[in-house]
This record gives sequence, C-alpha cells and structure tokens, in this order.
Amino acid sequence: MRILSETSRDGVREQLFVLDEIPGVLWTPDGAAGTRPLVVLGHGGGRHKRAPEIVDRARRLVTGYGFAVAAADVPNHGDRPLDETYDRIAAENQARVAAGEELAPLLARFQALVARQTVPEWRAVVSAVQRLGHVGEGPVGYWGVSLGCGLGVPFVAAEPRVRAAVLGLGGVTASGQDAARITVPVEFLVQWDDERVPRDQCLALFDAFGSAEKSLRAHPGRHADLPPFEQETTAAFLARHLT
Amino acid sequence: MRILSETSRDGVREQLFVLDEIPGVLWTPDGAAGTRPLVVLGHGGGRHKRAPEIVDRARRLVTGYGFAVAAADVPNHGDRPLDETYDRIAAENQARVAAGEELAPLLARFQALVARQTVPEWRAVVSAVQRLGHVGEGPVGYWGVSLGCGLGVPFVAAEPRVRAAVLGLGGVTASGQDAARITVPVEFLVQWDDERVPRDQCLALFDAFGSAEKSLRAHPGRHADLPPFEQETTAAFLARHLT
Repeated sequence: MRILSETSRDGVREQLFVLDEIPGVLWTPDGAAGTRPLVVLGHGGGRHKRAPEIVDRARRLVTGYGFAVAAADVPNHGDRPLDETYDRIAAENQARVAAGEELAPLLARFQALVARQTVPEWRAVVSAVQRLGHVGEGPVGYWGVSLGCGLGVPFVAAEPRVRAAVLGLGGVTASGQDAARITVPVEFLVQWDDERVPRDQCLALFDAFGSAEKSLRAHPGRHADLPPFEQETTAAFLARHLT
Repeated sequence: MRILSETSRDGVREQLFVLDEIPGVLWTPDGAAGTRPLVVLGHGGGRHKRAPEIVDRARRLVTGYGFAVAAADVPNHGDRPLDETYDRIAAENQARVAAGEELAPLLARFQALVARQTVPEWRAVVSAVQRLGHVGEGPVGYWGVSLGCGLGVPFVAAEPRVRAAVLGLGGVTASGQDAARITVPVEFLVQWDDERVPRDQCLALFDAFGSAEKSLRAHPGRHADLPPFEQETTAAFLARHLT
C-alpha cells in the first residue's frame, strides 16, 4: 500500500492510497492514534470513491464518531483504467434493456461478475488500512446502496471482520444467495417508488438476509431520492454495533 | 383537571391526574419550568397508561430530551370503569373470530367507534396539560402502536398541534381514510411476521399516509416483538421534529 497524498480539512485527515491496482481513500480524525472502528463505503454505479455523497458520509462518521472510513474505486469507475470486458458487457446490457429486456437479471449477472473481483479487493483494503497505527484492528462496518449493495452483499457475506452493514436499493435477484449467509445486523434501505429495483424484489432481499437483527427502512421516492436524514440514522446504527 | 398525586424518581416527576372522567399521567423533568415539547403516548390493547413499556418510553423521552410526556387510559382500560357497550362488542368480536370470521374488519369498526370518544378526550388532555407552566404550548408529538395506532391515526389526523407521529402495528382497514389526512412526518413500525395484522395491510397503511416525509421501519418477529432499540430510533425521530 502506497500513500499518494494527504490533506486535512475541518478535523478530518484524508489519505489517498493505492493498493496493488486499487485506488482508495482513507478518512480518519485529525491527530488520531490507536485502534478505532473502520467503516467501508461502497459507492454507487457511475460514481467513485470521492463522490460528494461518499465524502459527506465519511466526514460525518469521522467527526461524529471518531471512526476510520475507507472507500475504493470499483473497477471501471473513478481513477481506474477502462476494463474492456466490463465495458463491453455494460454496453450490451444497455442495448438489451433498450430492446425491452428486463434490467434486474442482467444487472444481477453483471454485479456477480464484478463482485468476484471486488470482494477480494475490499478484503485486501481492510487488511492494509488496519495495519496503520491510526486505524488498527477494530470492528468493521459496511455502508453501500445500489451498486454498493450488489457488491456489498457478497463482501459482507465473505468477510467475517464485518460486524454490521447498511445495505439497500438492491433486489433479491442480484444477491439473494449471498444474503442468506449474512448473519450480522443489517439496516436495509428501500425507496418505495424505486424505478430501477421493483419493490417486491427489495422486500424479498430483506427477507433473504440470515441476520437475526435486521431493519427495513423505506421512504417514498425514486431510486436516487434517499432522504438526507438517513445519513444520521444509519450512522447511529453503525455506531450502536461498532462501539 | 385535578392532580391526584405526585412522585419523583431519578430525575422524572410523575403526576397522576383526572380530567373530567379521563385518568391520565404526566411525566416531566424534575424541577422543569417553562415550555417544552409534549409527546402523547397511546397504550396498546389490554394495557394502560402506566404499563411498564409506556413508563419506560416516557422516562426515556423525559431524561434524554427534556420533553413532557402524557398518557391517558383508553375507555375500558386501566383505571377506567367497565363500559358495557365496548365490553359487549369486544366479547362479540372474540366470538366471531373464534367462529372463523376475519379479525381485521371487526377490529377496524371497533377502533373507529372507540376513536370517536378518544380523539376529543386526547385533544382535551393536550389542552389541559399545556396550560401547566412546566409544559406550555410547545410542539406536540404522538407515539402509539397497535391499539395506539388504531386510535392514534384519527387523533393525529384531527389534531393540528401534532407535528410528528410514530405509529405502527396497524393496518389500512382500520385507519386508511384518516391516514390520508395526515401530512406531518410519520415513522411507521411494521413487524414482518405480525400474526395479528397482515403485512400487506400494514404496507397499504404506510402507502395511505398523506405525509411527504414518512419512513417505514420493519423488523422480523411477531406483533409483540418490537425490538428494544426502536425506543432510541423513534425518540430520535421525534426529537428531530419537535426541537
């Protein structure tokens, strides 16, 4: 792992790093030393590790709770080079949806393919940042919706260091089998009028989680309309389980 | 309004009162003076104004947020005398359910009848306690599930002083029309395996609320299995809207 740059603003230290081929970012409290909980953020489709909503969420978790927060670019996003295989499949899927094919199963197969790469990548990121003195081997949480749910479900299922996860805006077609292997507390976000993921598929994914403690939170609005106050309630959920 | 008794424990002052024929209780912070938000708690069926879960919730709202909290016995509950009409209808309904009739419509009609009495009673309680110097005319919130939802929905719909409401464990059959008249923020609780209220009726009641801001929170488990951590999240919701 190589630190590329380091900046600080309003009490939050931001370190850009690269681990093998993975561009990532780590946020911690200014002057932090010693072990603390780590939250991994998964960004949405077409977004990246430093998209404004990711930075906002990270800063809130750092300043409000003293957590460390890490995010990595998903292949074909942010600072990563174009991956021709993924790019070709995405273009094919767009054409098939335009021709009338159903989106959910295409998306599910695509996300499962990408997850075969991102699950080991994100696990490596956790190991690398936890070797830093100001992160340490504390409890790990995960927050990711939409693409961050499609890739997050297999990650949380595979990674025993994760103790709690916020997921959502995703359907059972994409992640049902992995969801059944998740047993940590889950907060699951649903947009009641989601135009991308049918409501019944969202509810079925909530059903599929193996967790004894799971909460579904639904709000009116479309896929991208997650209300801002969810920032606070999901942060409080993570804090309850990581501290 | 007549104060019957007053006690204090761990920073919370509890005043039992009677307003006309309505036995009620008011909790406030010890030594409080001046205006503060008021939360009305509606108790569940077969419970009463000082049932342990009501007292717990009231104390949490008082100690955590400095709110005033009031609850009144529903007719035929707690310290109220037997009402022969209600008692007869309840007994008839039990017999009809035992004979195979569907519970929800019977319950809906019964709760609508009781609400014709409790809505004006609860509005009178709000007016009376808000005349006290240590309550004052601050914003009002409501918290009630199960019977507290069946009676709470018409109360919140009728009472413009209510600015936010936690409701749940209730179905659209009982309260759909009143729900459409509610426009304040609502947090709506659903038990995913509710054996008393079918899930689709719960989801339809959530749909029916006229509120622009509404959140559905669902958890695995039966009607009575509301998880203890909901105490905190719903209190935070009320605090967000009343302070």
